[in-house]
Amino acid sequence: MAAEMDAAVLHGVKDLRLEKVPEPRGPAGPDDVLIAMRSVGLCGSDVHYWQEGRIGSFVVTQPMILGHECSGQVVEVGANVRDLKPGDRVAIEPGIPCRVCTYCTTGRYNLCVNMRFFATPPDDGALAQYVSHPAALSYKLPENVDYEEAAMLEPFSVGLYATRRAGVAPGKSVLILGAGPVGLLCLLAAQAAGAMRIYVADIKDDRLAVASRLGAAGTFRADDPEIGERLREETEDLGPEIVLECSGAPSAVRQSVDLARPGGTVVWIGMGPASFEFPTLTVGIKELDVKGMFRYRHTWPTAIELVSSGKVDVKPLVTHRFGLPQVLDAFELTRTAADGAIKVMVNLEG
Amino acid sequence: MAAEMDAAVLHGVKDLRLEKVPEPRGPAGPDDVLIAMRSVGLCGSDVHYWQEGRIGSFVVTQPMILGHECSGQVVEVGANVRDLKPGDRVAIEPGIPCRVCTYCTTGRYNLCVNMRFFATPPDDGALAQYVSHPAALSYKLPENVDYEEAAMLEPFSVGLYATRRAGVAPGKSVLILGAGPVGLLCLLAAQAAGAMRIYVADIKDDRLAVASRLGAAGTFRADDPEIGERLREETEDLGPEIVLECSGAPSAVRQSVDLARPGGTVVWIGMGPASFEFPTLTVGIKELDVKGMFRYRHTWPTAIELVSSGKVDVKPLVTHRFGLPQVLDAFELTRTAADGAIKVMVNLEG
Amino acid sequence: MAAEMDAAVLHGVKDLRLEKVPEPRGPAGPDDVLIAMRSVGLCGSDVHYWQEGRIGSFVVTQPMILGHECSGQVVEVGANVRDLKPGDRVAIEPGIPCRVCTYCTTGRYNLCVNMRFFATPPDDGALAQYVSHPAALSYKLPENVDYEEAAMLEPFSVGLYATRRAGVAPGKSVLILGAGPVGLLCLLAAQAAGAMRIYVADIKDDRLAVASRLGAAGTFRADDPEIGERLREETEDLGPEIVLECSGAPSAVRQSVDLARPGGTVVWIGMGPASFEFPTLTVGIKELDVKGMFRYRHTWPTAIELVSSGKVDVKPLVTHRFGLPQVLDAFELTRTAADGAIKVMVNLEG
Amino acid sequence: MAAEMDAAVLHGVKDLRLEKVPEPRGPAGPDDVLIAMRSVGLCGSDVHYWQEGRIGSFVVTQPMILGHECSGQVVEVGANVRDLKPGDRVAIEPGIPCRVCTYCTTGRYNLCVNMRFFATPPDDGALAQYVSHPAALSYKLPENVDYEEAAMLEPFSVGLYATRRAGVAPGKSVLILGAGPVGLLCLLAAQAAGAMRIYVADIKDDRLAVASRLGAAGTFRADDPEIGERLREETEDLGPEIVLECSGAPSAVRQSVDLARPGGTVVWIGMGPASFEFPTLTVGIKELDVKGMFRYRHTWPTAIELVSSGKVDVKPLVTHRFGLPQVLDAFELTRTAADGAIKVMVNLEG
Repeated sequence: MAAEMDAAVLHGVKDLRLEKVPEPRGPAGPDDVLIAMRSVGLCGSDVHYWQEGRIGSFVVTQPMILGHECSGQVVEVGANVRDLKPGDRVAIEPGIPCRVCTYCTTGRYNLCVNMRFFATPPDDGALAQYVSHPAALSYKLPENVDYEEAAMLEPFSVGLYATRRAGVAPGKSVLILGAGPVGLLCLLAAQAAGAMRIYVADIKDDRLAVASRLGAAGTFRADDPEIGERLREETEDLGPEIVLECSGAPSAVRQSVDLARPGGTVVWIGMGPASFEFPTLTVGIKELDVKGMFRYRHTWPTAIELVSSGKVDVKPLVTHRFGLPQVLDAFELTRTAADGAIKVMVNLEG
Repeated sequence: MAAEMDAAVLHGVKDLRLEKVPEPRGPAGPDDVLIAMRSVGLCGSDVHYWQEGRIGSFVVTQPMILGHECSGQVVEVGANVRDLKPGDRVAIEPGIPCRVCTYCTTGRYNLCVNMRFFATPPDDGALAQYVSHPAALSYKLPENVDYEEAAMLEPFSVGLYATRRAGVAPGKSVLILGAGPVGLLCLLAAQAAGAMRIYVADIKDDRLAVASRLGAAGTFRADDPEIGERLREETEDLGPEIVLECSGAPSAVRQSVDLARPGGTVVWIGMGPASFEFPTLTVGIKELDVKGMFRYRHTWPTAIELVSSGKVDVKPLVTHRFGLPQVLDAFELTRTAADGAIKVMVNLEG
Repeated sequence: MAAEMDAAVLHGVKDLRLEKVPEPRGPAGPDDVLIAMRSVGLCGSDVHYWQEGRIGSFVVTQPMILGHECSGQVVEVGANVRDLKPGDRVAIEPGIPCRVCTYCTTGRYNLCVNMRFFATPPDDGALAQYVSHPAALSYKLPENVDYEEAAMLEPFSVGLYATRRAGVAPGKSVLILGAGPVGLLCLLAAQAAGAMRIYVADIKDDRLAVASRLGAAGTFRADDPEIGERLREETEDLGPEIVLECSGAPSAVRQSVDLARPGGTVVWIGMGPASFEFPTLTVGIKELDVKGMFRYRHTWPTAIELVSSGKVDVKPLVTHRFGLPQVLDAFELTRTAADGAIKVMVNLEG
Repeated sequence: MAAEMDAAVLHGVKDLRLEKVPEPRGPAGPDDVLIAMRSVGLCGSDVHYWQEGRIGSFVVTQPMILGHECSGQVVEVGANVRDLKPGDRVAIEPGIPCRVCTYCTTGRYNLCVNMRFFATPPDDGALAQYVSHPAALSYKLPENVDYEEAAMLEPFSVGLYATRRAGVAPGKSVLILGAGPVGLLCLLAAQAAGAMRIYVADIKDDRLAVASRLGAAGTFRADDPEIGERLREETEDLGPEIVLECSGAPSAVRQSVDLARPGGTVVWIGMGPASFEFPTLTVGIKELDVKGMFRYRHTWPTAIELVSSGKVDVKPLVTHRFGLPQVLDAFELTRTAADGAIKVMVNLEG
């Protein structure tokens, strides 16, 4: 292998560069594998780091490779690795937990206090030709799952974990607020968990049209003043039992509790402003369960099974594709969401 | 029985009168019992109706008897009643669910869509000499539980239900925000459920002193700028696993999520302003479970057992006592919380 | 209406008669509806009462109408009934709980201590031209659900409740022991809840063939000595996470814990001998959750939604149809399960 | 340190020897600590290995040091250890999970497929002067917890985990079958979790007397033919909501489901014969949850807190004490349970 490789490196606010960086010299340790990246999806958080240089308390202070929705092909395996071999195609879970903190030992590794995560300062991400990663977090793909689908398993994991947090099951009525990539993937995950009455609200009609095509039982303009009344007509006059808030917009976060049925469950998935006017009293009077969620846990095997079995088809969400040389264009399109862009994929040569 | 009885009747904003009203002519139906009231505790919501004439969407539009924390003695039983007889002493659960709505049939009767509840418009409350009530919601008292303790079971039910919503158990660290009657009863309930590290915060030192006497592991000034740091020192550097917010104050509601441990559970018990600035993003990043709660369900038998066994002693919270003729004074003292008043009890002659 | 109607009345062991009985004179009470029966499925328990005169402690001591899997058309409604009107087509939940016992008020009405249930002594069942039933337990059918499908909702409720007891969800591996009607309906319910790796074992190849046609991921001869090894190959070398035992056969009940994964969940649905040799130690060493289940609760609305949406197709299980005049032939076929019979339906004229 | 140390080594069936073995040369690895053992309690499983040479599929094929209920003092720490230092007093969790298998990563490390556990073939146990152990599984003791109490945390962990599996909480009625050490520790754990109505059954009156002294609400002869009736009198005519079976005796395992309330929870803690006649149908008809359990998980911090706070007093269960030189006598007394022996402790010189 060559000593240098191409990578999309963020140097500061709005300063993203495609440049040469040192190539990994093999798997980082005996339990790791070296992976040639094949597909990397772009995410709102990648764009947020690019535009703002930070997300909350995570600040980019040194050059950092972006990208964390990814898949690739194993090139070399560490000495202890038994379940993977060069040539294997893998989906990559981008967070590396410590396995020993109180969260890891109780099975909630997404809250690991020592987590290292792709493209979260100070750790590099996946938009590079080669990456070393733990074999245990590199999931071998069935033949009928391609690299783009494999990269989609990361955002789909958000939807899958949201449905678990919410307890989506057959018979439950579900409202999804926000029909961006995460909202649409929540729709697919909720369908897979057996929900039939899944409603989607957004302020963009083209996004709602996509939700309808994917099988939403109903779609609503989020700014329809009668959205509550119309939803109650569909839901025993009580409102939906489950609300998945995927936009982060303050108005939607407020709607999430205003529209939920008394005794219902609301999951906040979208990331928006840190603080704003919010009807806390509604949570009490309706006896809601409002659940935050941070990334995901224990999702890849199930996500692979859902895609491989055909129960979930993530492919229609990939609307645009670029090569690594065009990665800046890919970022710009993700930022603007122009041209009906939902998920923009960067595909590296195999 | 005489045709008239004394009752504390709210006629409008700040217009509470002790006056004669018609006495019930016996149990209202064959499954009901007629009860001579013995003890009625006053609650913040009674005061709120008195001062404001409404709570949220519940508006007092016609004269209404106040009071809902109560106990009494059975005077007469309906034709179908088998488990109670005249002379029995009973604690009263003040909400009458319909038993047929979706909430009732799934065991969540506190959310009953047809609930009738003492002193909630348009239904009369307990501050009267006689009240008819369903036998099934009138719990026979063991000999060692007196009428005041029995009346305290209503606010204690709030604390008991809060600990269930929160999952309080041995080993859990618990923070209680607000050391008023509800916060202190949450403390007693959390102790009964086996928690040892229970911390209480308030802005009043005398309330904190009461919490200490009742066995709090630590007390904090809620306005101490280092409260977070000090709590983390007691809780594995992570913060408490459970936060019970009992004040309703916006600053405390914000603290409830700011101070909770990642992955922790927050229960909102206090009732405050409908809407205010709130750090929603914290709920997501910390993956919190924020749970509202509305009144309580399935609590009386356990509450009676806890008090009767001596595991919980609610008596120290009863700080002041009045007769029914002095009920207006009792309300005024409850309003001001002067003289160290925690729970003010109205005792009727037996 | 005429004063008499036809009904299938069990008079004693192996003494089932089609005979005239008095017709109901209308709804039994103001909350009831009178229903003209349209489809009644026959069940193993009907056959068991017919052949043995009893099931456990339930003994037939007076003539009793059989049948409890049923649907029909509303003929007359009681004074309080608002949600149904003559002509409405309904699916019938055959158990009438008391709504006031400790099980009813906690939402577990299937354990009601005062339950009245179709064709369970001393209560009559559904194999008659007319039946009065509570409106609240008579579920209006969507247009695209026919009477036979509606009658199938009763046994499907068993499967649906089993998947809830078991926690079936996307990604879970499931083994179903027994491919009779209940096992096959568990298969459909588990699919609806998102499970993909559902395996079915039985000792009859034709039943396994049906399971395959319905979409089982794999089928096994229950008497294959290598069934454990073969299952582990499909399930991460650990065995299935969930086992649904639907046969009641002692060998299958033993297999249910022998084949389950450590930490897994086993639900016992089949009814067999009261007592037999069983490997209790396995339950401990594997830390299994073994769950009994009695009938079902809260299933009809979801079951209707699943069938109406097309997610679940119960129709292929209805293999044979008879009129009420041929009800004795229908029972005989159910008893022998000859001719590939799975579910035998008795259809009454409309 | 000397090159040799004393240890209680099992060489084969009924062949236990106190002999010299090589002393550990320090902590086994950088994350381990070397501990001078101070107290080691003897357990039924130690006796079982001694008498039978095996437990189920675990067979002693080479000399093995016995003992796994233990505490000691840190002598030397590995290079990475930060939280412990020489001189620290520690309680020891005797199972070392792999942290990477599916059970470990989902928080169920007691089911770890690669577990190494004290005195479980082929791993040595604690009855030796020095043992190396992971620092993460060596819990620093508060000053007011002594070595014997610390050794008792292991069997108490069984009781604590049983109450978690069962959902013991205030208001729950609990029946404990078997009043040996584990049954009595379940009693203490259930009290700590807030249960008040805890009943204990055994066939030995002296054991029942101990249960009474420890605060059982009632005790019963397990062979009393009216035990069911008498229990129902105490439990709303339904039976206890929770049954903790601690004896392993077939008659008691059968009673565990016969006596439980419909809808109740039964936990099997005792280890008895592998297989015997058992009323499986009762589990179904009563809709019970029967839960096995294997050892424990996540218990030490809570157990330490309970003992240190005084909520639980395990000391009365330690009835007899021996030095390491008398370890064979200690085993013999544990085997016979003569002289009112409950827990026999081996104390090593400090």
